[in-house]
Formats: sequence, structure tokens, C-alpha cells
Amino acid sequence: MKRIFEINPWNITSHNFPKEDMRLAESITSIGNDYMGMRGNFEEGYSGDSLSGTYLAGVWFPDKTRVGWWKNGYPEYFGKSLNAPSFIGIQILVDGEKVDLAKCDFSDYYQNLDMHQGLLTRSYIYHGKSNIKFTFERFLSNKIQEAALIKVKAQVLKGSAKLEFISTLDGNVVNEDSNYEEHFWKPILEDEKEKCIQLITKENPFQVPQFTVLLKQSLRVNGEKVHGEVETKAGYLAEKVTTMLDAGEKYELEKDVIVITSRDVAPDEQAERADLLMHELCEHTFSENLAEHEAIWQKRWEKSDVQIKGSDEAQQGIRFNIFQLFMTYYGQDARLNIGPKGFTGEKYGGATYWDTEAYIIPMYLAVAPKEVTHALLEYRHKQLPGAYHNAKQQGLKGALFPMVTFNGIECHNEWEITFEEIHRNADIPFAIYQYTEYTGDESYVQDEGMDVLVGTARFWADRVHFSKRKHKYMIHGVTGPNEYENNVNNNWFTNQMAAWLLSYTLERLPKAKLEALKRLAVSDEEKAHWQDIVDNMYFPEDKELGIFVQHDTFLDKDIRPVSTIPASERPINQHWSWDKILRSPFIKQADVLQGIYFLNNHFTKEQKEKNFDFYEPLTVHESSLSACIHAILAAELGKQDKAVELYQRTARLDLDNYNNDTSDGLHITSMSGSWLAIVQGFAGMRYYNDELCFKPFVPSQWQGYSFKMNYRGRLLEVNVSDEIKLRLISGPSLKVKVYDQEVLLEEGQEKCLKA
Amino acid sequence: MKRIFEINPWNITSHNFPKEDMRLAESITSIGNDYMGMRGNFEEGYSGDSLSGTYLAGVWFPDKTRVGWWKNGYPEYFGKSLNAPSFIGIQILVDGEKVDLAKCDFSDYYQNLDMHQGLLTRSYIYHGKSNIKFTFERFLSNKIQEAALIKVKAQVLKGSAKLEFISTLDGNVVNEDSNYEEHFWKPILEDEKEKCIQLITKENPFQVPQFTVLLKQSLRVNGEKVHGEVETKAGYLAEKVTTMLDAGEKYELEKDVIVITSRDVAPDEQAERADLLMHELCEHTFSENLAEHEAIWQKRWEKSDVQIKGSDEAQQGIRFNIFQLFMTYYGQDARLNIGPKGFTGEKYGGATYWDTEAYIIPMYLAVAPKEVTHALLEYRHKQLPGAYHNAKQQGLKGALFPMVTFNGIECHNEWEITFEEIHRNADIPFAIYQYTEYTGDESYVQDEGMDVLVGTARFWADRVHFSKRKHKYMIHGVTGPNEYENNVNNNWFTNQMAAWLLSYTLERLPKAKLEALKRLAVSDEEKAHWQDIVDNMYFPEDKELGIFVQHDTFLDKDIRPVSTIPASERPINQHWSWDKILRSPFIKQADVLQGIYFLNNHFTKEQKEKNFDFYEPLTVHESSLSACIHAILAAELGKQDKAVELYQRTARLDLDNYNNDTSDGLHITSMSGSWLAIVQGFAGMRYYNDELCFKPFVPSQWQGYSFKMNYRGRLLEVNVSDEIKLRLISGPSLKVKVYDQEVLLEEGQEKCLKA
Repeated sequence: MKRIFEINPWNITSHNFPKEDMRLAESITSIGNDYMGMRGNFEEGYSGDSLSGTYLAGVWFPDKTRVGWWKNGYPEYFGKSLNAPSFIGIQILVDGEKVDLAKCDFSDYYQNLDMHQGLLTRSYIYHGKSNIKFTFERFLSNKIQEAALIKVKAQVLKGSAKLEFISTLDGNVVNEDSNYEEHFWKPILEDEKEKCIQLITKENPFQVPQFTVLLKQSLRVNGEKVHGEVETKAGYLAEKVTTMLDAGEKYELEKDVIVITSRDVAPDEQAERADLLMHELCEHTFSENLAEHEAIWQKRWEKSDVQIKGSDEAQQGIRFNIFQLFMTYYGQDARLNIGPKGFTGEKYGGATYWDTEAYIIPMYLAVAPKEVTHALLEYRHKQLPGAYHNAKQQGLKGALFPMVTFNGIECHNEWEITFEEIHRNADIPFAIYQYTEYTGDESYVQDEGMDVLVGTARFWADRVHFSKRKHKYMIHGVTGPNEYENNVNNNWFTNQMAAWLLSYTLERLPKAKLEALKRLAVSDEEKAHWQDIVDNMYFPEDKELGIFVQHDTFLDKDIRPVSTIPASERPINQHWSWDKILRSPFIKQADVLQGIYFLNNHFTKEQKEKNFDFYEPLTVHESSLSACIHAILAAELGKQDKAVELYQRTARLDLDNYNNDTSDGLHITSMSGSWLAIVQGFAGMRYYNDELCFKPFVPSQWQGYSFKMNYRGRLLEVNVSDEIKLRLISGPSLKVKVYDQEVLLEEGQEKCLKA
Repeated sequence: MKRIFEINPWNITSHNFPKEDMRLAESITSIGNDYMGMRGNFEEGYSGDSLSGTYLAGVWFPDKTRVGWWKNGYPEYFGKSLNAPSFIGIQILVDGEKVDLAKCDFSDYYQNLDMHQGLLTRSYIYHGKSNIKFTFERFLSNKIQEAALIKVKAQVLKGSAKLEFISTLDGNVVNEDSNYEEHFWKPILEDEKEKCIQLITKENPFQVPQFTVLLKQSLRVNGEKVHGEVETKAGYLAEKVTTMLDAGEKYELEKDVIVITSRDVAPDEQAERADLLMHELCEHTFSENLAEHEAIWQKRWEKSDVQIKGSDEAQQGIRFNIFQLFMTYYGQDARLNIGPKGFTGEKYGGATYWDTEAYIIPMYLAVAPKEVTHALLEYRHKQLPGAYHNAKQQGLKGALFPMVTFNGIECHNEWEITFEEIHRNADIPFAIYQYTEYTGDESYVQDEGMDVLVGTARFWADRVHFSKRKHKYMIHGVTGPNEYENNVNNNWFTNQMAAWLLSYTLERLPKAKLEALKRLAVSDEEKAHWQDIVDNMYFPEDKELGIFVQHDTFLDKDIRPVSTIPASERPINQHWSWDKILRSPFIKQADVLQGIYFLNNHFTKEQKEKNFDFYEPLTVHESSLSACIHAILAAELGKQDKAVELYQRTARLDLDNYNNDTSDGLHITSMSGSWLAIVQGFAGMRYYNDELCFKPFVPSQWQGYSFKMNYRGRLLEVNVSDEIKLRLISGPSLKVKVYDQEVLLEEGQEKCLKA
């Protein structure tokens, strides 16, 4: 654990220069606007250890798969989150000396990411022959998504100085994970007059379209548009403005940037489009543009803010997570998804994991408009051809959604994941069930959703085998959610989810639209086979211990609790060989418990309790996706202290760098975990059979909490303290259940119950 | 299956140009002399599809490990069998036109590898304005191992021609498996006067010493030394001689080459050493040098030849295997070992696998001097520090011999092999047992051998775990010899061999030399723990089926015989995804049966029979190391036809390209399989408790067979036909057992028994 920013309900603030933790600070101060984003790199440059990163949503590169030994079925390429041309650069020279915090003398360092406003600020006092206070402000507009706005203020405190500002657009970037320092971008154009550069991603042999991007900048000094001296080289443009300042004098340089990609605009129309947007942007001052940007943040917060009384740490954690999630995705483009690092790092590659469906959708359903979740469902439907391709690669029927992808085609390259972590192929369709249950909107599952269900059902029906010895259907050779075991047989979670998928598909088929039924042509024989699998699936279980068994031979392990691991060896993934990890009984993330979470209403309290008590002590939670699931179950089982401990871990995973890897980027897809822990955990929110229920309690460390959620056309506020207050902010009246009590809510009214 | 060479007892001959199968032909016509070797590439060059390869024993390069996702414990580098500077080149120009069989017109193609003589010959008639017969002869001297001798004869059949011969030394070579066409050699020197070039392998960050090699050439025309025109460029030397020939005229160009490496001679002394050896070589004519080379072959054949009456196919197969093995290794350098591809390809990398101990040593014990096997044991003893390093990398005690290595340090990079295929760590020490049993020489096991036994015993004692549930020691997370399953639990073979290792170490410890005991300091507690593991090891078994179970959940698979796989899908490793292979019941190579082969006297005939009958139908034999083991067991069980079928596969694996992968290089380490199938299989040779036994039969397709073997200072000939003839060629009298009959053999005498 390492905390480098201060506790504050709405701000991520530091007064200390993070010399030893620059990458960590850069990750945490990342910003984005759903269209693009970047790490908290410095405008003026920084020659110390740092990870530069600018990312454009949906712009990627298929890099040749590199493995030690090739195995049949490996994907041809690995989709890289591409480090995009950087546009934040404003080098500063004071009397000819470059300002570089790795080398020069400075004081009063301050950095702040304002989550209410969506603004990143940084300032310090430079000490040279003169003393100058520099302040930087930066945001990526929510209104014009193609726009980045940066302002540098300089104020001479002592002495006088010649100041030169060199504002750059720079396409000479590499990925940290590129092979042999390979460049993925090729320059096409540098236009000194229009102040733009255009680049294209390298050719690839995989028929993946190349991306072209155009970057354009424009400068304002003290609010007035200026033209500096422009120089270019291949893929690079620099525009210089110079000033002389005496003590007390102030100077403001504003850099407006427009970024256009060929995802939206054809390459030869990009310059024109950029020009148009730049005009639009420059009609307003920096403050006006910021105000519009902020207003959009206010609207989002109004529908989604969570307030916690009694713990500013917890408060900051949950807001940071919601803030970062919304900066990554707010459903405006159904071609996009939510990558594990969002716009904050290049690690893991790929845009889309099962994380989206398993962890993000349950939250987005409640905090964002219904259309946002619908767009995420559509995304998978669009990628069904890729899923059919993936199954075929393995010699199997039906559709297999990928572990990692940009375009539907699997691009992960470890056999134990690519070929084996197939539980994803039920978890992803599970979101259709969640969407339908939550929204009551049956239209998706009756039509496009049915394509997804039948495609994946056909995969599962082919992937199981019948064990003649045990007279049961089995699933061999899988990796469950616990990636600390590979190639296991009959992972309980996978078998459960596969059976669920087949069963749900059979249940839904009769209600599908006629065109869907025609298109899919599921035969009676096929249905009978699916039913047979559902009826005869094998689920490992230990009757004596009263638990579901993670997989066939799990109980033969040297079972011992996590507490027996010396602290110096945690996290084990940074201290133990892979071999030792695999053989250990320690669980990376919820596995059996993930199944109990998903299919919550299928199990008795006793089953839940026995399994929780057995598996929680074995779980190291070294996946960011783990603690929240345990927190929710702990809450349900009345283990309130445990629930809070696990909440803390999920809420402040990045802010406190729990897993010692936030320097690579934030754990974006696990950020919903803290929201889930509060709403599904502490407040006990469930929705089954058109009924919305709560079983709230207040963690003893807090005084109370409140959250807002939408539900079937309503906006609700739930406020839990000594009493439980429910307010229907808008929408038609609604019956909810609080513990065993039915409560009727009317628009504008608040109901108050004793806790 | 594809056969491109003709059947002939002593020759590998073809009269057809292998246009479509050049790589296959190149592999099969590889030659070597224990010090260096090369594929059957053409002296004059060939622009069609081809795999060029020249290899110097013990000269390698540590290439940075490339994996999709890094896992803790992965080795830092992968040892590459380095494609070495090529010295066979003699380009030919006829009236200025390059002779290139991919492009020019020719007839009467002929190629022959004479196994009796150790000579590779090739000839054809070139058709241009003139017709010219070219003949090439090449061998790597058995007498001066640093010497390669090449002769080109040209005879004009029609017309007249200007002929230019450009003899080259060429260090501009790459490995086919290099990343991004990387070069591993850097030129140091080109000496036009001395006609030599010197190169050094690239720097590496792994503290692996760089290798320097020097190549020197000298030309003779019609027997007389000549000096051609020499040109050089970096890492390259070309020497040209020119002649005009009329119809009927002949011309002979001889190229003598000396290759020196820094393994033997310091870089600055290499030129002098090469000069000396070149003088020695040039004191004799090509024919004289060839005669001396051939004489050494005769001596080897006298001690090792196997004769088969009634099948020239079988005869050619066994000779080819013995020939190629001896060209790869004849024990002259204890720093060397036997790579899976020998000098015939770069695939697999690394020099040393467990293949050496498991498959080669049992044969070499009988056909080569005792010192050859001793050198192979020493090799591992020298590499013990690397083995301790490997165990430490996994967080385990003791010594773990590597899966692949040049220097003792593991350099394989698939976790399921590197970390898990640990049965090697008992198979390798098993050779100590075999050596001791066969030779009766106890000196090794009492001293250096004990270091190996105790080091590996300590590894196993730490690697097992105690399952509290089953009250047994278990070994989880392994890959058995059947690499078509990975990360299984309680692989019967691995558990057996681990228990054997501990048991043998305990048995041998009391007889160890005092210094060894002091050095190793095995405590009583340690011994008691080892004994406890031996007594309580878990071995999966199915009492009902009467078989040992390959691993814990093997029998849950969809068990069905290999015969159910469509022919178009064989070999499955070229047609199925890795996922499908892993989940299938099909076995790549002997696994349980490998254990029954190793620990043959531990099992009853009924056990052997039941297991053979169960596992053989499931085995696809897609490892070259498989068929021979099954053949031996089939023979022991009286399943003579099965034994012969499997013998055929192992004997002619490369000649008939059974596994469709010989184009990459020959399966050198499996070449002993045919010898083992005859001697241990058909002749039933065994040696337990100082007793040598035979239970011979003649396969019904043959009339008879004979072989020679040494045993404890004797040379014996065994001749099996309608009767069994045993002849003690040399050495003190010896009692052997034939079936149940004791036979006393006296030097020079032959005993004849009815079969």
C-alpha cells in the first residue's frame, strides 16, 4: 500500500513532488473524455522516470503474436492499445534553460485533479536567476470531445526573465511494450500554416484497417489568438512564442487542440473538420469552455453521486472510481468498450474483456441512462462474426467471445487463457439477462440478444463432453476466474455458468421474435441435447464440508489460509514463481464465490455461508476484480466488518496502490467494485422478478451513506443512516421492498423507515 | 509418410531431384563428425526453397526470451542452436551463367550418402550451350575433426565452356528462428593472404561467454595446391579459380577447410592452429584423407553393426540411425551432449534434453566404449550448479536439471514444460542406475553420482506435498512424458520416478564414498522424510480396469481409440487446436508405459499386459520417442506383429518422414529407438543383478538379425534366426541367460541354441 495523494472528498491533491512515484502519480492523474485520454504527464516534459501515454478510443494496432513456442489455434496478432501522438507538450525555456523538474530547482509543488469540475491543475515555483510561478490547467472537453484545452500561466515573482514556450504536436511515440522499439505510426503530413500534423498507423498483414489521425493546435496569449514561429519535422510540429516578463508580471498561454481520427472522418476530410471544430472551440474563452464541460459533469454527478458520511477516505475512493469510469466510457459510441486500463496505460492491450459485462454493466444499469448499457450489449452483437471465428479456431461449433479484443477476434496469446478461460462465454451473455431483468426491456433478448444466446449455447454444447464413467457432462481443460490455476477440470463456476447459459437460452427461445427464430433455426434435437446437458451437468461438491469444490482436485491441495503466507511474500504474484502459485491453494479472485454472486438466488444462505467461510480465507485478492464480490457476499451474510475491509480495498485500490501495480495504469474495469459493494453490498440491492429490494445497513465505521440510481424510468435516492430514507426523485410510483417490508414510493416523496 | 530415397542396405540414394522436398532431402543427407555438421545443402548454392544450416558443437547463442506474457521464474534467455558460418560454398559459373538447380536445365541427378564410408556424393549433367557433368563429394573428417573436405569434379560432355569456381567462407548467416532477422555473428577479421575469416557471436546481457570461430580454406586443382583470386567483404571471403574445358576434359577442384572455435583455442591462437591443421591435412590427398576417415567408420561399425535378413527397409533404417547418432556424438568431449536435431536443424534450440539419458544411454552403453556413457554422466555432474539455480528459480530446494540447456541453466520458455515437465529430474539420474547396472562400475555412483542423486532427491522432497485429505504425498502441477496434457496432478509416471529416485538414493547412500557423504551431509531426519515419501506416495490406479491411471482425472475423459480419428486429421498436432489436443484422450508418447519400461522388473506380466492393452490404442506416437518403447513392451508381451509395426515406425521415422516434420531436421535423439526395439525388444535383452538375459524371437517378416554389443569388457555377437547363436568375440568368459537356460560363453566360441 502506498498513498501519495491527500484525502479530500472531491479532489485528488498533492503538495509533494512524486519524484520516486512519478508513474503512480501519472496514472492517478489521468484524464479522459470517452473519446480520448492521457496519463498525467507534464506539459513541459520530464526527463526522469515516467510513462508517457496518450490514447485515442478505438485506435489500435495488431502486433504480430510473439510466443516462445507456437501452438495451433494461437491468434495471429495481439491488439495493442496504441500510444497515440502526444498533443500536451509545451516546453518552457527560462532565459534559454529548459524547465525540467527532474533537473531544475523548484518549490511549492501542487497538483490537483478536481473531480467535480473534471480539471487537472498543477503549479510550482521555479527557482533560477528569477523566480517564476507556473500553473498548468488541462481538460478534455465533454462538449466537443475532439478538443483538448491546456493553459499555462506564468507569473514572475522575483527578477525578470525571457520566457519561450514551445507548443508541440508529436507523433514520434513508441509503446513501452513494442518489440525492438518499433514505431507504430508513420507521418503523412505536417502543415505549418494550418498547424496540424497527420499520421497513419503502420501497415499490418492481418487485414486490420489502418487508422489515420490529424492533430491541430492553436494558441492564445492572454486570451488573444497568436501565431508563433512554426517548425516541423516528420510527424512533429512545434510553435514557439516568446515573452519578456518583469517581476509581478503575468502571462497566460492557452493551447487549443483538435484531434480527429479516421474512425469518424475520412483522412482527406480531417483537416476541414478540424478547422471547423477549432473555430467552434475558439468562439469561447477557456473559462467558458471549461464551464460547459463542468456543467456536463454536474449532470452526471446528479444522477450518480454516492455520499458517505464519516469517512472521507471512503468518500474519495468511490468518487474517484465513478469519475474515472465516466471519463473512460459514457456510452456515446457503441463501437467502443471499456479497456482494463482505460486511457491510463498500455498494459494488457486490447479494449475489451469480460470485465465489462461482469463488473461494469451491473453498475452502469443504475447510474447511467439505459442506452449506455444497451450500447455495450450491441457492441458484442456486432462482434458475433469474430466470436464464430474464435470458436472455429478451436475446432468448435458456435460462437466464442474473446478474452481480449478490439474487433471481436481473440488476440490474447497464452493458451491457458485464450483457449481455456472460456467462462467468459457465459458471463458475457449473462449481461443480457441482467439488462432484461433490470430494465424490464425484453426487446433485446427477443431479437439480437437471441443471436448471442444461441451462438454461445452452441459453443457450450460442443465444448462439454460426456464422461461415460461418471454418466455426467463435464468441461475439461479450463481456467476459471481464479487465474492462479490453469487447465483444470470441471471448474464449478464454469460448469455452473455454462449450464445457466443453456438453460436461459432454452427458457427465452419460445419468446423470441419470429425472424430471430427463423434466422437461428434451432432444431428440436438441439434443444433436447441442451436440456440433457442442463440436467446432467457435473458440479464438483464436497458434501462433508458442505461446499462446492472449485475444480476436480482442488481439495487435494495443501489447503491453508492466506494468513500463513509471510507478509514479505505478498502479493504472491510478485514474489513466487508461477509454478509455486499454481500449486498453492491460494485464489487470485472470487471463483466459486463469483458464481454464487452471479446466480445469487439459486443458493441457500447456508450454502453461501459455508462457501464464503471456506474460500474467503484462501483468497489473496490479487485481481482487482475480487474484493468487491467478497464484500457483497460478506454484507449479505451479515459479516459487516469483513465487508467493510474488502470495500476499503476495492474503493481505494489505485489511490492506495494496494496491488503495487497502479504505476502501469489504473484498474478501470474494477472501479465499479466499490459502487457494487455499497449498493449491492451494504444496501443489499437486488432485482428479481420485477421486484427491487434492499436490505441496507451502515458499516460501523461510517455514519451513513446515500446514492442515486435509475430504475425503469425513475430516479431514486437511497439514504441510509440511523434510518433508511427512500426518495423517488422522478418517475412513476414504484413499489420496492426493504427487508420484508413493501414500500410504495411516489414521485417527489421521501419515505423514512427505521433501520 | 513420404519416402524420397531408395531402399539400400548401406546407402541413402536418390535418382530424382527433390524439387518439392528439398528441406526433407537436406535433413536426411546431413553429415557430421561429433565436432561439427551440416545439412545437405548444395555447394553451388540453390535459390529454391531450402533451409541452410551449419552447426558447430557447443557453439550457441542466448537469445532474449520472448513470451506473450511474462511469468515469474521464466528463464532470461533461450539457448539457440546457432547457424554457424558456412564453409561449403563453391559457386559455379558456366560461361558466366550461375549454376543453380532451381533455374537451370539439368539431367541425371544423383545423390548418395554412403553410410559405410561416411561420404556424401552428388552429381548431375548440366545442359547449357555445353553439357557438363558435375560431381560433388563431401565429408567431415573423423581423424582431424576440425577439417571439412569437399571435391567438385567437372567433365565436359559436349561443347566447350569457361568454368569459374568461387569458393566461399560466409559468416553472413541468420537463424530461421531469429527475431526480426537478427544476425548473431559479428565479423572480426578477413585475411586474404591466409584465406581465413574470423567471427564472434554477438554480445549478450546474460554473462554467457561469446564464441569466436575462425574458418580457413585452401584449394587444390587436379591435386595441386592453387591460389585463386581472393576477394573479401565483412565476414566473407571468396576465392576464384577459372578454367576453359573442351569436350571430354575433366577438372577437379578440392576445397580443404579448417574450422577452429574458442571452445578449444583462444581467439588469438586460432590462425596458427588452423595453419598447422591445414598443413597436416594437405600432406595427404583427398583419397588418403577419405581412407583414414573411412577406417574409423569401419572400426565403429565392427562394434555396432546390426544386420537384418529379409528386410532391406528395416536394414537401411537401423543403419541410418546408428550412422546419424555416431556423427552427432561419439563421446570425445564431455562438454558436449546430443541435441534433438544434432547437426541437422535449428529447431528446439538447446543442446540437451532428457532424451539423452532416457533413450541414448541405454544403447550407447552397448555399442560404444564405456567412456562414452561416462562422459555423458559427467556432463550432467558438471552442470549441477545450473540445476541448483533452476530449483531456486522455482523457490524449491535441491537441484532441478533443465528441460533444455547448453550450460545447465534452464532455457525453455513454456511454463507447462519449464516448470512442470519435471519427471526429467528423475529420468536423468536414472542413467546413473543404468550405467552402474550395465557396467558393474560402482565408482561413479559412489562419488559424483551421489551429488546428482542427493541434489535431485532434495528437489523431490520439497516438490511433493502432503494431502491431508488423502494422507498421501502428491505431486501436483506436472506435465508427464505425454506432452499432450499439461499441468496435471499425480502423473503416475512422475510419481513413480520421483519415488524411485528417493528410494535409490537411500539405497545407495550407505555405500557412498566418505568424502561424498561429508560433502552432502544428509541428515537422519532428511532420510526419514525421504523414506516416508517413498512409503506414502500416491499412485493413481483403477482397480476395476486393472491399470495405472495416467493422472488423476484421465479416466473422466471421452476415452476412445486412435482409430476413431479420421486419417485426414493425423497427425493431430498439425490439424487440431492445442485446446482440442489437450482435452482429447490421445497420448503423444509413452507415459505410463514409459514407467513400466524404465522400472520393468517392478511389475507383473499381467500389469504390463493390462496397461499396454489400455494405453497403446490411445497413443498417437507423435513424439519420435514413443514407438520404440511400445515396441519393446509389445515384444516382451509376445505381441510380435505390433512390435514390428512399431519398430518400422521408429526405424524409418525420418527416412519415411512419418511425422511430416523431418524437413526441420532429423529426430536424432530418438534414433536409438530402433536399436532398442531390436535388442531390448526382439532379442529381449535385460540386465538385472549382474545377469545378462535374452528372450529372442524373429519377427515373422524377417529371416533373422544379428547385432554386436559390449558388456563388461566383452564384445558379443548375437545372431537370431531359426536358431540363436551367441558368440563371445573377445573378453573373459561370461554366463548369460537365454529364456530360462544358462549359457556359458568362452572367448572366440559360438554357442548355438534352438529358438
